[in-house]
Amino acid sequence: MTADLSTEQARERIRAAYDPTLLRQAGHVLVEALADHLATVQQGQGPVLPWHVPEDLVREAGEVRDQIPPNGNRAALVDRFRRLLATMLERGLNLHHPHYIGHQVPPPVPIAGWFDAVGSVTNQCMAIYDMGPWATAVEQSMVRRLGEQIGWQVGEFSGLVTHGGSLANFTALLTARNVSLPDAWERGVMTDGRMPVLVVHSDAHYCVARSAGMLGLGTGSVLRVGLDSQRRMDPNRLDELLGDLRKRNQPIVATVACACATPIGAFDPLQTIADICRRHDVWLHVDAAHGGCACLSARHRHLLTGIECADSIVWDAHKMLFVPALCALVLYRNAAHRFEAFRQDAPYLFDPSAPGMAEYDSGMRTVECTKRAAAFGLWGIWSMFGPQLLADMVDVTFEMGRALYEKLLAASDFQALHEPQCNIVVFRHVPAGMTGTSPEHLGRFQLELRRRLIQSGDFYIVSTNVDRIGALRVTIINPLTTTRDLDQLLDALRAEANRMLAEGLA
Amino acid sequence: MTADLSTEQARERIRAAYDPTLLRQAGHVLVEALADHLATVQQGQGPVLPWHVPEDLVREAGEVRDQIPPNGNRAALVDRFRRLLATMLERGLNLHHPHYIGHQVPPPVPIAGWFDAVGSVTNQCMAIYDMGPWATAVEQSMVRRLGEQIGWQVGEFSGLVTHGGSLANFTALLTARNVSLPDAWERGVMTDGRMPVLVVHSDAHYCVARSAGMLGLGTGSVLRVGLDSQRRMDPNRLDELLGDLRKRNQPIVATVACACATPIGAFDPLQTIADICRRHDVWLHVDAAHGGCACLSARHRHLLTGIECADSIVWDAHKMLFVPALCALVLYRNAAHRFEAFRQDAPYLFDPSAPGMAEYDSGMRTVECTKRAAAFGLWGIWSMFGPQLLADMVDVTFEMGRALYEKLLAASDFQALHEPQCNIVVFRHVPAGMTGTSPEHLGRFQLELRRRLIQSGDFYIVSTNVDRIGALRVTIINPLTTTRDLDQLLDALRAEANRMLAEGLA
Repeated sequence: MTADLSTEQARERIRAAYDPTLLRQAGHVLVEALADHLATVQQGQGPVLPWHVPEDLVREAGEVRDQIPPNGNRAALVDRFRRLLATMLERGLNLHHPHYIGHQVPPPVPIAGWFDAVGSVTNQCMAIYDMGPWATAVEQSMVRRLGEQIGWQVGEFSGLVTHGGSLANFTALLTARNVSLPDAWERGVMTDGRMPVLVVHSDAHYCVARSAGMLGLGTGSVLRVGLDSQRRMDPNRLDELLGDLRKRNQPIVATVACACATPIGAFDPLQTIADICRRHDVWLHVDAAHGGCACLSARHRHLLTGIECADSIVWDAHKMLFVPALCALVLYRNAAHRFEAFRQDAPYLFDPSAPGMAEYDSGMRTVECTKRAAAFGLWGIWSMFGPQLLADMVDVTFEMGRALYEKLLAASDFQALHEPQCNIVVFRHVPAGMTGTSPEHLGRFQLELRRRLIQSGDFYIVSTNVDRIGALRVTIINPLTTTRDLDQLLDALRAEANRMLAEGLA
Repeated sequence: MTADLSTEQARERIRAAYDPTLLRQAGHVLVEALADHLATVQQGQGPVLPWHVPEDLVREAGEVRDQIPPNGNRAALVDRFRRLLATMLERGLNLHHPHYIGHQVPPPVPIAGWFDAVGSVTNQCMAIYDMGPWATAVEQSMVRRLGEQIGWQVGEFSGLVTHGGSLANFTALLTARNVSLPDAWERGVMTDGRMPVLVVHSDAHYCVARSAGMLGLGTGSVLRVGLDSQRRMDPNRLDELLGDLRKRNQPIVATVACACATPIGAFDPLQTIADICRRHDVWLHVDAAHGGCACLSARHRHLLTGIECADSIVWDAHKMLFVPALCALVLYRNAAHRFEAFRQDAPYLFDPSAPGMAEYDSGMRTVECTKRAAAFGLWGIWSMFGPQLLADMVDVTFEMGRALYEKLLAASDFQALHEPQCNIVVFRHVPAGMTGTSPEHLGRFQLELRRRLIQSGDFYIVSTNVDRIGALRVTIINPLTTTRDLDQLLDALRAEANRMLAEGLA
């Protein structure tokens, strides 16, 4: 039968693709290429960002993809793999370069990637326990360990791992919504004309307002609490606002505080805020995606005083715990809230013949049904190096934030816009020729300066707006970055600015 | 200064963790261990699931983690890595075992895991283009390629990759909500008393009703359309329902059809449904998480006739395109809808000085801000083996679904509950001694039989309920599974059932 013949040919092609020897040979190629690449990049060789126009790269990705080797034998496949790999490494951003000090995304501890690879190759998914028993165990053990670090007792709190801080904040706020509006899950957020509100730090990450939009509250229901001079949430204004809302019987979903807020890395006074929320009986959510790491550092623990009073906390391991994206933790102080985000069953998933298993079925708590073994990297580096390494990386990068600040203060052509509380530093470069320039003009100059700098490949930094005026923003999230690199940053900015001035671009 | 000394010690520990030679040595250990493991598992040696009580594994994961080598030199670290790896492989589910035919999660083409590993080690994130230029290019090239496969023209449609089918369905339905209720994003879903509804296939995945809960519509707003005898959405009933809703001016967020629905893998008559939705001016969303793959198979393409008329489609590459979790595509027929899910800006992310870049900033379209390079695996295996391999795997696994069905029909002690349309097969085992048993009793017996079978390690299958009565469910999603394995499955079920009968458990 021709069907049988074509099936046998298909099976042969499948066996060739699943061939363990192909995995082995390609794997050794991968290891050599990645280790070589990393050695080069960490020494600061080559560009940080190999800049290309996006549409050119999209076209190239399609063209490369379609050059499929005809009837490739194993040697041809390994060779193809080698070339694909070279393209990937040539075209990517080099986060391990000491001049990468950009977004709140770290160069991960490299070996964390090998732990992730175990999950990828063997596909240890979750949703239900027995699809990823060890992945589940690792996730729960890390949730417990980090919850203890917050200051909680195992058994009293609960948590989960999800794909990123935005999804984590959304999940926590979904829980807060369902707890504060008990009918919302089934009946929707329609209330009798009084729209529930979300009270947030003015500088909260954009995903918080997005969450309001997604949750059906509307972004218009987000009430922003004014900030103090260090861009921290002002507790007095929070107290006043909550009191006012309670007086008007306005339903309040939650207060969202930050540890730290994205723009300049400001840590809120959590203890005071927690006391206020408790007094007004309002759910306190703390977005500690970046700053949760301070829990692990004796030197910086004080920044989080009071965090243990929060009802929910988000903490991204793929930020300052230096694992590859994505591994974000949602923690609930009260374990009774662990199933509040969703209130459903799926008979083919959650087996009523084994009801206790739901405690270990991650899909009961996460937006994801099938989920990657997202905690393998975190568990792996903790198991290899212990919490000391994580504390080291927090201390060193925070210290570099302070070092950059001092360099900015000492330089007449730079303006530091705040005293850093962690490793985020926002500033402007004001070349001698631009001291009389309007703020708007100076702001546009920063954005253009940053774009030229990153496209040169010399440094990767970020821009932002402070009070609607453009500024430069650095997160020293590469623990390999030293003060020498920071000196070079100021010099590189000066040189680029000079070129712009010479070209009449300023 | 003591601060300097402690910083220098910290930096030394950091350099040891980032040592490229450690990555290299551990990497070669990883490759050998994974290739050996895969070779063993693919030959069907060892258990599919090494069953352990969850709490025991959680404890073990914590204990293993905390045995951190004191002052480990590189050799000690590599040795530690080797032992951690052994534990991970011993404790995980073996999806590459030919007896793994469980959930809609495949044993991935192994080398896809190496492409993923490039993303993990070098952390090619997105949100904005220049944080992962190649990751962005690869994702966009795959979105375009798969959209073309749907039957669309590049330039007219749009799409994104997100972390899983649940998040993908949520994202598409968020877009549908925002388009059908233009005020919802800012003002919330409060309407003047008429709750917007979501019209869905009765067997839609649980994430669809969850999406209604999350989006503020409420799960009560989900209206389920009745099914025909093959558990496909009944177009006549859909037409009637939509007509009725329109007559009453009820806002309709979307119709959700399935290709295929989870329980028995039924493919909806998409062309008819699309015509009805167009006539009533209702957004049509097709959850093709599992069945989108049929686009790639000449033999099974017909199952998706009409899918090109959908407004949005979800298609999971981590299901039937055989890449590691998670890589789910959301596709919009009309590119004008690409920014409808979210309507926001974040100045430090989306640079107004380069507005065209937003087209390539994935964070504008996804719930995730920072995002993994989730399409590396898909691009990688496509580049290595071409679409032929994917078509092969669809054809072979669908054929195995049919083969199992025929074996069930031929066996007097098995009841097939439907004629399979793909690789999902639902059935019951009815041993000779149980033919007179009540349906409820027989259903409970299936659940218990399944649990004992998977805990024995011999096979991994799933249970479900059909019309509230327990049944066995198999997804032949392992392309290495053969008819011989299916014969062994029936024998294993018989043997386990006999043991249960002998123990008086039936």
